[in-house]
Amino acid sequence: MPSLAQEGEVYVLDLGEDENRFHPDWIKSVDGFLDEVAAVEGPRALVTKATGKFFSNGLDIDWLGEHSDQATEYVHQVHALFARVLAFPAPTVAALQGHTFAAGAMLALAHDWRYMRADRGFFCLPEADINIPFTEGMTALIKAKLTPAAATETMVSARRFGGEDALAAGLVDAVADEEALLPGAIERARGLAAKDGATLGTIKQRMYASELAVLLDTSGNPFG
Amino acid sequence: MPSLAQEGEVYVLDLGEDENRFHPDWIKSVDGFLDEVAAVEGPRALVTKATGKFFSNGLDIDWLGEHSDQATEYVHQVHALFARVLAFPAPTVAALQGHTFAAGAMLALAHDWRYMRADRGFFCLPEADINIPFTEGMTALIKAKLTPAAATETMVSARRFGGEDALAAGLVDAVADEEALLPGAIERARGLAAKDGATLGTIKQRMYASELAVLLDTSGNPFG
Amino acid sequence: MPSLAQEGEVYVLDLGEDENRFHPDWIKSVDGFLDEVAAVEGPRALVTKATGKFFSNGLDIDWLGEHSDQATEYVHQVHALFARVLAFPAPTVAALQGHTFAAGAMLALAHDWRYMRADRGFFCLPEADINIPFTEGMTALIKAKLTPAAATETMVSARRFGGEDALAAGLVDAVADEEALLPGAIERARGLAAKDGATLGTIKQRMYASELAVLLDTSGNPFG
Repeated sequence: MPSLAQEGEVYVLDLGEDENRFHPDWIKSVDGFLDEVAAVEGPRALVTKATGKFFSNGLDIDWLGEHSDQATEYVHQVHALFARVLAFPAPTVAALQGHTFAAGAMLALAHDWRYMRADRGFFCLPEADINIPFTEGMTALIKAKLTPAAATETMVSARRFGGEDALAAGLVDAVADEEALLPGAIERARGLAAKDGATLGTIKQRMYASELAVLLDTSGNPFG
Repeated sequence: MPSLAQEGEVYVLDLGEDENRFHPDWIKSVDGFLDEVAAVEGPRALVTKATGKFFSNGLDIDWLGEHSDQATEYVHQVHALFARVLAFPAPTVAALQGHTFAAGAMLALAHDWRYMRADRGFFCLPEADINIPFTEGMTALIKAKLTPAAATETMVSARRFGGEDALAAGLVDAVADEEALLPGAIERARGLAAKDGATLGTIKQRMYASELAVLLDTSGNPFG
Repeated sequence: MPSLAQEGEVYVLDLGEDENRFHPDWIKSVDGFLDEVAAVEGPRALVTKATGKFFSNGLDIDWLGEHSDQATEYVHQVHALFARVLAFPAPTVAALQGHTFAAGAMLALAHDWRYMRADRGFFCLPEADINIPFTEGMTALIKAKLTPAAATETMVSARRFGGEDALAAGLVDAVADEEALLPGAIERARGLAAKDGATLGTIKQRMYASELAVLLDTSGNPFG
């Protein structure tokens, strides 16, 4: 399960030690830690990482299979998590220490910056290969963070990107060795922590106004 | 006139042997071949190329001059062709073996990927030089596929890009020698052919929802 | 105060010799010179530069502090200036010979191309550091000209970019030594001056239709 640690002004959210799929309890836990960080007065920044082989593999397909009657509500919760990170009122850096797949990759994209391990792990949106089209909200989020060519390459080809390839395509902003990854992400976040949270929140709400509107719209069927 | 050939799971659409301008009969022919490919069950991918010096020079200005009373309907047909390729329910690769100009370049941009001959031929949107502003639908299509800097460079400067320049600007995804161009495009398409066509179609419909709406809107005057 | 000079078909707008902040009189002066250039019949292009250490530092905070009752009208005037340059019916090149900050940087972004001095001066959107969130109009303008990664880097980190960094991030299109900067920008503009102004105006109005609508909307409160 997720946990939150503090490195001075930088809050390090650990998504967990397994595949870190988005079980409803996991979402609730992550959401609670985001509440904590958002409530910090004064300088604060967020680094999101995980422990072990995976950053996150995304939706909890097993749970979803057993609770298909709650699928719509579940996807709305996932969308709300993306929206919250997208407009989070503090600088946010995702440190991708392991595999970052599907909704896990979207969660990474919702952050302001992404650092990725250079030598192991893949960034991948496999939806085209597993016959689960992106929802409108997911589509809006991904397109908001990537160039048109990178959106096609990730969303249509479902290609797996290693660190260097992900950097070249602009999916991530920097790559680093395993040992340097988290320190680098924390250093980046620390340098931005002094910015006023409310100002950053407003800036990001306006940058992503249309995407947030789609992500937070619960009136329709997200499966189209 | 256009023709369709098959290389295993890859369908190779040849736009023709001359300037391959968008005569109404040519559009009808291309549309029919797209019907054929879309109707293939199981793995399929599309490569679009031409034969000789031109990929396509775009709108059939001669025909248009002789049928100015049909101009609006004609542009709507061109828009519909762009929309169809933009959201085609299979992977699409354009192999630009020759000059790719104006609406011919837009047709290339509607594909998922573009391969271009490295040593000969130009990619160019000459509209600013020939005093024909892009329609709203064309504008939406071009902007959806290029970075802001590349959109300005192509749409405002009307610059002609050779292969290497087009690659550097992100107008195309790869360049190759004349002999390697089509095999490379087919190889790329073959590697993607196994993806479910309906899933790809839905993914692309959502990626380009706003552009498709503009392209398929026949209520207004496309000349503004 | 601003001034206008002519180099053949290229009109060189000098924003002034100090910080070139957007005092209402300064805006009126710049607007008058834009009227002059837009009224030229036949070939014409615009290069915008300044003299000395600054290109422009943006909003006139001192004036605004003394006229807070006119803040809304003032911001609408600034938005209108951005809109006018964004869709200017001629090729436009900004030659950034000095510091280019805040609304000064936005004015630069409204041009078709940006040339920047390689060795001195910074391009910076400091809004996140001075707790003044970008208006919706400013947000739309900046996002229309930058890749998603560059928008985050400038708008969320408020980082100051030197010439080479600005080029690498795509904030500017070329860098040059002090001596070569203005001649290079003029040369670029001259090569584009023959294009029909009305055609270019229509092309840019359609490229930036949604941004222009936001910038020219005076119905709301720009401070949100």
